[in-house]
Amino acid sequence: MLVVSLMRLGDEEARLREQFPEVAFEFYKYPGELPVETQKNMDVLISYHGAVDESFIDAAPNLKWIAWYATGVNSLPLEKLHERGIKLTNGKGVHAQQLSEWLFAYILDDFKQLKAVYEEQLNKQYNRKRLTRTLDSTTILFLGTGVIPQRAAQIAKVFGMKTIGLNTTGHEVTQFDETYPLAERHNIYRQADIVVNVLPETKETYHLLTIDDFEAMDSETLFINIGRGTIASTDVLVKALKEKMIRAAYLDVFEEEPLTEDSPLYTLDNVFLTSHITGNGADNKVKATQILKNNLPHFLNNGSLIENVVDLNKGY
Amino acid sequence: MLVVSLMRLGDEEARLREQFPEVAFEFYKYPGELPVETQKNMDVLISYHGAVDESFIDAAPNLKWIAWYATGVNSLPLEKLHERGIKLTNGKGVHAQQLSEWLFAYILDDFKQLKAVYEEQLNKQYNRKRLTRTLDSTTILFLGTGVIPQRAAQIAKVFGMKTIGLNTTGHEVTQFDETYPLAERHNIYRQADIVVNVLPETKETYHLLTIDDFEAMDSETLFINIGRGTIASTDVLVKALKEKMIRAAYLDVFEEEPLTEDSPLYTLDNVFLTSHITGNGADNKVKATQILKNNLPHFLNNGSLIENVVDLNKGY
Repeated sequence: MLVVSLMRLGDEEARLREQFPEVAFEFYKYPGELPVETQKNMDVLISYHGAVDESFIDAAPNLKWIAWYATGVNSLPLEKLHERGIKLTNGKGVHAQQLSEWLFAYILDDFKQLKAVYEEQLNKQYNRKRLTRTLDSTTILFLGTGVIPQRAAQIAKVFGMKTIGLNTTGHEVTQFDETYPLAERHNIYRQADIVVNVLPETKETYHLLTIDDFEAMDSETLFINIGRGTIASTDVLVKALKEKMIRAAYLDVFEEEPLTEDSPLYTLDNVFLTSHITGNGADNKVKATQILKNNLPHFLNNGSLIENVVDLNKGY
Repeated sequence: MLVVSLMRLGDEEARLREQFPEVAFEFYKYPGELPVETQKNMDVLISYHGAVDESFIDAAPNLKWIAWYATGVNSLPLEKLHERGIKLTNGKGVHAQQLSEWLFAYILDDFKQLKAVYEEQLNKQYNRKRLTRTLDSTTILFLGTGVIPQRAAQIAKVFGMKTIGLNTTGHEVTQFDETYPLAERHNIYRQADIVVNVLPETKETYHLLTIDDFEAMDSETLFINIGRGTIASTDVLVKALKEKMIRAAYLDVFEEEPLTEDSPLYTLDNVFLTSHITGNGADNKVKATQILKNNLPHFLNNGSLIENVVDLNKGY
């Protein structure tokens, strides 16, 4: 049994070898270092690198399981995996804490007007009268009700916010005061002070939000995207922000990444941009390796996986 | 019975008159508008204005109760009130939500490096690699365990933080994982990633923190003051920050307010300053008036007060 990682895992490497002496592990810093022969023979692949495309899979005829260390699997050739019968697990849950913290960093930066406050400090102005909004008794709406929005909604509720979650069927989910089907979203938006996209990229969510969505939101809405950038086209976002259909946006993900210097998003004054960093975390690899460790004994025993298995048809 | 307010209370004025028809209410926009005769006759005073000093009290011989709409009562002549037998209530609890939100705005601004991230946006830089700290498994220490730190600690716990509270005796308080007496603080500081002052100004807390306190903290400590500015002298704070005894500070209150342009605090690059605004809130007056409404029937009945009564000896 050969397990190959397309990144180094630090202290986890020795721990894996110790815990699974019957498995051969190989760790490479970059996909380019991977010998052709190793790629041909590997049973399991650990990665979240964009190099894992259709031709990469074709050159790995023995591959049976990809342990993907990110949550979003949209860059992988899912149909090819399905065709080949290759199983896929992801890092779902690993990023819930970081993403939730970033979400509240964005919200509080906006609600507490931190940039304007800092400007005053730089100008040595003491403005005793500044009045900022409070989170309690505001409503936050999540597109998506998975592990990440559940964690975020748990924090939102302690801040005193009302939480609404939208998912495919509108089924109830813990931490959400109300849930509705995504298809009904145009009638729900106006209740929300904050709309947060946390949906994965799938065929169904690609360009799901059109200009009608932003028109249906309240003009004071704060829109936040920590899901995937393809939920709306850049054109739609720019139009919605330029024409003040919504008040402001905080975006960590984009239709095309990396963002280039000529992006029209850089020209707007009601958008705050980060560089797809909300999932970055010092202990992500340790947490994702724990999922691998939980699955590996079952995989060795009978080829089954028990945790974080991705439905290749759904894409999450 | 004459109740005089040194500020306008908006819609609350009509509600008070309706709920208490037997009481005469007078509302003034500024203390300077108050007629001498009214000041002489009033039984109850509503205010949080600095004009309420010893001579103001002397000119109000009939005064029996001050309904103070702020939490901190340090600007009032407490000994004089004691001498005269004037009762005092404050706005404790009214500001817990706002202050807690500001506290996490500060912490997340620091932990998520929002200023550096914004700088990148202005320079159109896309830095995919930025790694920021997470709150979970950090320790936050509060000087004070009253209503405000309890609310803040409740939020901290949902973020996954360990909460330590310091109070006079070290008695247990809800929401704190551990509590210790303030006198033992020098031995506790090093456990904390974040130290937050929420103590009121009293004889005991005036200049409580000396340079020894900051020397006893870890050099990576984030210090936040949302209590009262006199907890440490400006000199001590500047020295601690300049000599990097602590990593950074977020300060909303100062030894002398307002902060003047020549304050040495404006010259430091590891301090973030706000203008005593963390308690500002659009609904503060409504919330503080609710405390008045809860007390007034008892006061009318037998001169007693049941809620938010300040101990004039303790000063909180």
